[in-house]
Amino acid sequence: MVFHGHLRGGEPVSPLDSVLVVGTGLIGTSVALALREHDVEVRLADLDPGSVRLASELGAGLPWSPGEGGPAFDLAVIAVPPQYVAAELLSLQRQGVARHYTDVASVKALPLAEAGRLGCDLASFVAGHPLAGRERSGPAAARADLFLGRPWAYCPAPETSPAAVETLLGLIKLCGAEAVRVAAEEHDRAVAVVSHAPHVTAAAVAARLAEAPETALGLAGQGVRDVTRIAAGDPALWTGILSGNALPVAKVLEAVAADIAAAAAALRRTAGADVPDAGAEAGMPWVTALLERGVTGTERIPGKHGGPASVYANVQVIVGDRPGELARLFQVAKEAGVNIEDVRLEHTPGLPLGAAELSVQPQAADTLIGALRAHGWHIP
Amino acid sequence: MVFHGHLRGGEPVSPLDSVLVVGTGLIGTSVALALREHDVEVRLADLDPGSVRLASELGAGLPWSPGEGGPAFDLAVIAVPPQYVAAELLSLQRQGVARHYTDVASVKALPLAEAGRLGCDLASFVAGHPLAGRERSGPAAARADLFLGRPWAYCPAPETSPAAVETLLGLIKLCGAEAVRVAAEEHDRAVAVVSHAPHVTAAAVAARLAEAPETALGLAGQGVRDVTRIAAGDPALWTGILSGNALPVAKVLEAVAADIAAAAAALRRTAGADVPDAGAEAGMPWVTALLERGVTGTERIPGKHGGPASVYANVQVIVGDRPGELARLFQVAKEAGVNIEDVRLEHTPGLPLGAAELSVQPQAADTLIGALRAHGWHIP
Repeated sequence: MVFHGHLRGGEPVSPLDSVLVVGTGLIGTSVALALREHDVEVRLADLDPGSVRLASELGAGLPWSPGEGGPAFDLAVIAVPPQYVAAELLSLQRQGVARHYTDVASVKALPLAEAGRLGCDLASFVAGHPLAGRERSGPAAARADLFLGRPWAYCPAPETSPAAVETLLGLIKLCGAEAVRVAAEEHDRAVAVVSHAPHVTAAAVAARLAEAPETALGLAGQGVRDVTRIAAGDPALWTGILSGNALPVAKVLEAVAADIAAAAAALRRTAGADVPDAGAEAGMPWVTALLERGVTGTERIPGKHGGPASVYANVQVIVGDRPGELARLFQVAKEAGVNIEDVRLEHTPGLPLGAAELSVQPQAADTLIGALRAHGWHIP
Repeated sequence: MVFHGHLRGGEPVSPLDSVLVVGTGLIGTSVALALREHDVEVRLADLDPGSVRLASELGAGLPWSPGEGGPAFDLAVIAVPPQYVAAELLSLQRQGVARHYTDVASVKALPLAEAGRLGCDLASFVAGHPLAGRERSGPAAARADLFLGRPWAYCPAPETSPAAVETLLGLIKLCGAEAVRVAAEEHDRAVAVVSHAPHVTAAAVAARLAEAPETALGLAGQGVRDVTRIAAGDPALWTGILSGNALPVAKVLEAVAADIAAAAAALRRTAGADVPDAGAEAGMPWVTALLERGVTGTERIPGKHGGPASVYANVQVIVGDRPGELARLFQVAKEAGVNIEDVRLEHTPGLPLGAAELSVQPQAADTLIGALRAHGWHIP
């Protein structure tokens, strides 16, 4: 046991000695790894014995079987797809496996309603959702630091006991995440906008690439790579998430589809082509207004460190594609006392050269540029 | 004059002594800066005298005025929005400003047709389009290396003279880009898929963020940031681009909107809600199939260095937010002889910690991990 008493200005949290993780995918195994770093006793279960074995070999804890008996865990973390959360909760509660229960599913209202319907004990359960993920899935992609500084939403039901909430807050702290209390319905509407609908939209753009001629792919730049990156995610996993948050996602997608269809109609009219839908009246000014709404939307996304979107100065440097280039570059920044807030390598297809874009505090940009130039770096 | 005779296996190119750049925005100024690095004489013109002055101060060349007279330039680069290309070409040709002409607009068929209609001399003109850009615009964002290794499409008309093509190939080589010959209509259909339609789609997703409650923005992760990044681009500039490629973009957007609307209908049906459009029959299996088409699409995007999408091994390292952290990290990689192919900092909002994701050749991953661990780095 490593986590007792009071943290963060006297907020009381429950001790967390032993945790059962049910579902050793990316999220479950990452939770387990984070807890193991704090020497919490972690046991692992999954329908797939191979997945448990791999997670266990990665240091996430020891396997557990339903029939084992023994003292109850402090907390059971149900890390299964959203559609299986309620049934799993019921099964674990009937066995009296743990004092408190939580889940990590990307949707909250439906599993919660289902748990009530199945007759689960809602006093010992707090629905939760760490806002963290990767395109890769499975225990091999897990990382103990996956939740560091990320929001971790939790949605107590009216029946939920304060002790269950405190236990979950203890877990969230051990994972290094930021607890965000939010009602289940509000959570689901929020993630529909910032995660689920963007995923479907990215897939719809990427689907065009699947059918495009080779010439088109040859002209692909960074923009379409960024827009479609998340579309590489696991279709089965995402089908479960989307099913579980179907109506909120549908509403956002309808608005997205309507805007895109209206833009298409406006462009057809601009091209002098027939527009079948006679009701559409939008022209190019409407398209401009859509683009302007888009700019406004991007400006609302919070920046690094959870604060408001901050403006770093970006310094461009030409780097070669050899070992040590970036080491030398960062050494110069270090000697100049400049902290690199972010770095992005822009690839230059076909050439052993690239541009590194270094983000720094605006007041540090000149210092960095001067230092890099003094060391022979080429800054365009 | 720096660029004569034969390059790349005997392909003959014209000498390029003097170039006029009309339009000193991001692309025009970047072309000028690239040419200046090769000591080509560059003169600059723009409707906005302030823009010319700034480009000139940045070292892009000396200002030029229409009435100046003097010997003809080898090449005039028309770097104005697509809707003004043909009129500008006509005006410059009437003055006999240059031997050859090209443009850099993101659309090709419409300006070319307009140039024909206006009676421009198509023998001395080759339409061109460097596939490079940034969210930022204007001469201050220009970079001499903007085109390094990027595709530069060119679309000779039947009337275009071989000498005009050779002159443009000389320009493309001096800018370090890869010349890609493609018919104007094929070009426009390609960029509709890989650039123009994704831009509108990103704007439609970002528009939802503009109207979303603060809670939703607080749950935003890296996915929605990537999907909406290009939506921060200049609406006026993009309105011009979209108008000029209206029909091809409309067709792609119609397919994207139809897929998204069908996904929305399937999700509504899943939620047990009424679906107004009785014709739609798609259910969750259809949504899964859309996600699968999306995965296929992302897999077709070429990777670094212009080759097929390559698979690097990704090594995760925990780094602090202090000057020198990355310098030390890259120094270790350098000493281990490992080339970092890409680096991505994953921010951890609210904490002075982050995860650096280093992409390396798969066979170098173990070496790097061993070296980093030996130096005390934490690899989850």
